Amino acid sequence: MVVVMSPDATDEDVARVVEKVEGVGGEAFVSKGLERTIIGLVGDIDSFHHLNLRTLRGVADVHRISDPYKLVSRQHRPDRSTVWIGEPGRQVPIGPETLTFIAGPCAVESAQQTLEAAQMARSAGAAILRGGAFKPRTSPYAFQGLGVKGLEILADVRVATGLPIVTEVVDARDVPVVAEYADMLQIGTRNMANFGLLQAAGESGKPVLLKRGMTATIEEWLMAAEYIAQRGNLDVVLCERGIRTFEPATRNTLDISAVPVVQAASHLPVIVDPSHAAGRRDLVLPLSRAAIAVGADGVIVDVHPQPEVALCDGPQALEGADLRELAQAVRRLPALVGKEPALAPVV
Amino acid sequence: MVVVMSPDATDEDVARVVEKVEGVGGEAFVSKGLERTIIGLVGDIDSFHHLNLRTLRGVADVHRISDPYKLVSRQHRPDRSTVWIGEPGRQVPIGPETLTFIAGPCAVESAQQTLEAAQMARSAGAAILRGGAFKPRTSPYAFQGLGVKGLEILADVRVATGLPIVTEVVDARDVPVVAEYADMLQIGTRNMANFGLLQAAGESGKPVLLKRGMTATIEEWLMAAEYIAQRGNLDVVLCERGIRTFEPATRNTLDISAVPVVQAASHLPVIVDPSHAAGRRDLVLPLSRAAIAVGADGVIVDVHPQPEVALCDGPQALEGADLRELAQAVRRLPALVGKEPALAPVV
Amino acid sequence: MVVVMSPDATDEDVARVVEKVEGVGGEAFVSKGLERTIIGLVGDIDSFHHLNLRTLRGVADVHRISDPYKLVSRQHRPDRSTVWIGEPGRQVPIGPETLTFIAGPCAVESAQQTLEAAQMARSAGAAILRGGAFKPRTSPYAFQGLGVKGLEILADVRVATGLPIVTEVVDARDVPVVAEYADMLQIGTRNMANFGLLQAAGESGKPVLLKRGMTATIEEWLMAAEYIAQRGNLDVVLCERGIRTFEPATRNTLDISAVPVVQAASHLPVIVDPSHAAGRRDLVLPLSRAAIAVGADGVIVDVHPQPEVALCDGPQALEGADLRELAQAVRRLPALVGKEPALAPVV
Amino acid sequence: MVVVMSPDATDEDVARVVEKVEGVGGEAFVSKGLERTIIGLVGDIDSFHHLNLRTLRGVADVHRISDPYKLVSRQHRPDRSTVWIGEPGRQVPIGPETLTFIAGPCAVESAQQTLEAAQMARSAGAAILRGGAFKPRTSPYAFQGLGVKGLEILADVRVATGLPIVTEVVDARDVPVVAEYADMLQIGTRNMANFGLLQAAGESGKPVLLKRGMTATIEEWLMAAEYIAQRGNLDVVLCERGIRTFEPATRNTLDISAVPVVQAASHLPVIVDPSHAAGRRDLVLPLSRAAIAVGADGVIVDVHPQPEVALCDGPQALEGADLRELAQAVRRLPALVGKEPALAPVV
Repeated sequence: MVVVMSPDATDEDVARVVEKVEGVGGEAFVSKGLERTIIGLVGDIDSFHHLNLRTLRGVADVHRISDPYKLVSRQHRPDRSTVWIGEPGRQVPIGPETLTFIAGPCAVESAQQTLEAAQMARSAGAAILRGGAFKPRTSPYAFQGLGVKGLEILADVRVATGLPIVTEVVDARDVPVVAEYADMLQIGTRNMANFGLLQAAGESGKPVLLKRGMTATIEEWLMAAEYIAQRGNLDVVLCERGIRTFEPATRNTLDISAVPVVQAASHLPVIVDPSHAAGRRDLVLPLSRAAIAVGADGVIVDVHPQPEVALCDGPQALEGADLRELAQAVRRLPALVGKEPALAPVV
Repeated sequence: MVVVMSPDATDEDVARVVEKVEGVGGEAFVSKGLERTIIGLVGDIDSFHHLNLRTLRGVADVHRISDPYKLVSRQHRPDRSTVWIGEPGRQVPIGPETLTFIAGPCAVESAQQTLEAAQMARSAGAAILRGGAFKPRTSPYAFQGLGVKGLEILADVRVATGLPIVTEVVDARDVPVVAEYADMLQIGTRNMANFGLLQAAGESGKPVLLKRGMTATIEEWLMAAEYIAQRGNLDVVLCERGIRTFEPATRNTLDISAVPVVQAASHLPVIVDPSHAAGRRDLVLPLSRAAIAVGADGVIVDVHPQPEVALCDGPQALEGADLRELAQAVRRLPALVGKEPALAPVV
Repeated sequence: MVVVMSPDATDEDVARVVEKVEGVGGEAFVSKGLERTIIGLVGDIDSFHHLNLRTLRGVADVHRISDPYKLVSRQHRPDRSTVWIGEPGRQVPIGPETLTFIAGPCAVESAQQTLEAAQMARSAGAAILRGGAFKPRTSPYAFQGLGVKGLEILADVRVATGLPIVTEVVDARDVPVVAEYADMLQIGTRNMANFGLLQAAGESGKPVLLKRGMTATIEEWLMAAEYIAQRGNLDVVLCERGIRTFEPATRNTLDISAVPVVQAASHLPVIVDPSHAAGRRDLVLPLSRAAIAVGADGVIVDVHPQPEVALCDGPQALEGADLRELAQAVRRLPALVGKEPALAPVV
Repeated sequence: MVVVMSPDATDEDVARVVEKVEGVGGEAFVSKGLERTIIGLVGDIDSFHHLNLRTLRGVADVHRISDPYKLVSRQHRPDRSTVWIGEPGRQVPIGPETLTFIAGPCAVESAQQTLEAAQMARSAGAAILRGGAFKPRTSPYAFQGLGVKGLEILADVRVATGLPIVTEVVDARDVPVVAEYADMLQIGTRNMANFGLLQAAGESGKPVLLKRGMTATIEEWLMAAEYIAQRGNLDVVLCERGIRTFEPATRNTLDISAVPVVQAASHLPVIVDPSHAAGRRDLVLPLSRAAIAVGADGVIVDVHPQPEVALCDGPQALEGADLRELAQAVRRLPALVGKEPALAPVV
């Protein structure tokens, strides 16, 4: 930590800061400049936080230097992690060696639609099935998902296709039931800072797919992962899904740089969701290519057998020729960044 | 709703849209332009949503025209509402006739600190006490609040000072216990889109103070209020507390325009929190003045008897001379916008 | 300046930084932490910039501590400045003692329209007339202003009403002709970082009204003022006019906090333009009140005798009852923040 | 255009809109809904703009439906364009068939440094040399470039290496001299809305590289290109270089989606500048790969023989191993998106 004094701070003001820091066992190094004095703090950062240094007379600013997350950082674990999804013996990896393709319908609407979507996904090279049973919706008047009935459908489709399942949980009270059915819990963009939900997911015993809050900085996102990790669960996969900006041409702005930034800061795998970022079907293919080329550990997309009757996000779901082109990109591009496609479990 | 066809849409494409709309009982008015055709839809909007018009061939865009919220709109209730806080016979209004000053510590730390802060608040003209027992914190390593013990302290201080209490609830599972103690439930900026929590608050039987998500549009904020209203609770007070922008000089950017924008669109009262918006003590007084002058129905600020030892947000808490100046503004400014200060209940 | 070393930096890496800093005559104070070492630099900052410390091995980050502007800062001149507009003997002040009301049409369209707007403005308490002769337009197909003919009209209206004139200049090549007619040059939001124009305005001999770039930080805005000041012209008035955010309800988001932030950092006066920030007539009055209450040194608004035929920004121009209410606010509110309305010159 | 009436608009209000529209030769189609009436306008949009419909009583909103740009749109020219850079017989294409690699130093500092950087660039597969002689700098105290001396150096290096030159022009008054030396004029992010400069570039007779304003929407960027095109110059190449968002981990957020969005809307080529977007050397390679994979028509990066002594943006300049890896990506990736690397002219 660095304390920056204001230009009119007195020697007593500086001395008071030093005294406070030493009072909690820290060391304070004073650098007296022409205009300002700065004080470098060495010691336990958490104890410094409680000093409220910013409220002391003569203090202009306090800069944090270290990262605020610990368990998810590469300082804690230098090698990048692989998270394994699914039952023992039939697991699918997400990590530095592979490119894992995840696909499925935005919402589970019926057994038939989900099975067809899963078969489309598997044929296109997907190794994990996505599908929403509990849907967080901006409007209380919109379709809210099939709930437990949807989870049952997903479980049946897992048996039929062999694909492990990732599905969203939107309420801490639902974590046990979702964890009973799903292979991986998804925490959505609107819940990234729902700390009770993060903690419940951390105690669920299942891997977690943590989407970035659409307005969260990368640091806040990693702090949300830290909440999960703190409960003993380090099986967290991060998912970049676009951030809110002033640009209206896409629903959100895919922050493609977040992938290498996260990989440098954290050992956790990071994947990309181009469907929800763009909100436009014609962008899903080029953005998926970009995600693989930038080095993402996976891509997750919406597919639907009949987008025009989808109850949720139909305009961005892939089908037909687009999906075939994406399947080709998933096969050919990973090798160029030193990865290989993760394979679906054998049925 | 307006459907905009792409320039290369065919007559069949247009006919298909019309057919779909008429199929759910709507009317479609076709305007054929030089470059594009547009189609105006008349009828039940919710039924149009399920048509997925955006996925039809030849459709370039679909514009929603009506507001998506209903119960909280001024079309539903033309006159602006007053929400009453506290026990019958000792209630404090928040609404169009008054300027309600709410103050207290960011976090309840001890009985002594809370009582002193409440007395400071009451002396300065506050009619309602704020104070956090459950704190949502970005870091799992930060102070998380005293929990139920904090609620008990608040209840004791209510008895001692006569001030009704507003306090935050961060988890749907805590709504019953918080509603048992508090006069008003606060839903914080990070939980504005926590739909389970909104619904639980809607069923709590207590008024709700709904802070704007720091990255929520005004429309999304009103939709969150609609979630509460839909459960039968129209006693919702909105609170503007700054939005996330590119400007680093303040913690968030206070969107002062949101006050008149909300008042034109919704009948719900709207107040302003300058402390959390700015994150700097020196801005609280000028921003409070601005809030009153723009026509806000209340202001809510942090006060602390000793900011330098506060466990939360000390740098923005008011004391001494600043608080006295704010008290003066609260007394003098409301008359200039046709309001009068709301009075604290007689002890 | 503070140099933050990465956790794996070696002693040689630290020594190299110290050596570089000392090589240009600076001092380097090393603070060795548990995880990282930080180095505080003391000396001439400009010389440190050329060292490219960020490119050295082991350097993780370099934090600037001092403000990058000098002439416009309160460290350079502790007391807030007053800028005087108009001919000697008939000057209007903009500064800490006064609230200066500036009004006029967005664009000069004809002699008749400009004269009527000026008379409306003066009757409402305006002391300076605004009006655009050169208009920067996003579309090359939009009305671009009357040019020199517009300047002549403004000069005639100045004679008729006694009001000094502020008008925009959009191209460095036009500075001489605009300075010949105008009492104050306006630099618009799109040109805030047009450094050639800033320098030309700095050499014009006239006061400058510098609007904030709609996407500029306050620091960048003050750096733009520094460009003007560096050419010997300290008669700069800053104008907050809204910043670009994700909120669509208003054209831009008025950053009301910028007023006290600027007043704490710089001695230059700062005024507010609520018309262009909001883009909605119904918000101009409440936002003007907020601007005066927050302590702005002036407000500038669009007025038009017939908004429905305006060639530019008609939807936000005031007339009739709205203008009368604003006139009342301009008379009554300044006293509450220790200011008085600036008076128009006697005709 | 679509006019949306407010819920309380009367039949007379609707009639007045219709009358105005018909008065300028347009047609108005009225759709009367349950809550609101909407009116579709057909005819010449520019004439509708002058009606100021938004100011009429009963009008709630006016939506523009068509794109505001014409010459640069794919409606105007359906096939994507190729722009040719350099002298006849030695030209380098930028367009749909190729991936053009542009590299060079951020600033021209000396003949020696520029020549070395150009040789590095050419060896790595670059077909065009970039280098700044006139630099727009946020601070008036920063290095402003060598000016005409820098242009001369660039011209000498062109002779030595055969690479055509793109260099920035920051002031309309400098366009003639820059056009005398350069093969392509660059307009930088801070000048994207400097309309006088756009028009001067449009009349220069040289191709223009138009960077996106760091806070410009894609539509505003295309309107800036329209300004150039309107002066008869359709040889415009667009360059995405990152937009300003709330994320601090990168200098700006590279909007990778802008590439396919622009390619769908406009026939102009579009390239990507990952160096200035990220501001971090370690991100340049992954972002360049992403740019090629998304379908960009080129990439432009900073290279410097000795980044640690660069006068400008040293921290992001490539050298050594990074540059060799990028060279490999430029050779291998384009084939996967149906393109081939553009070749440098034979010396």
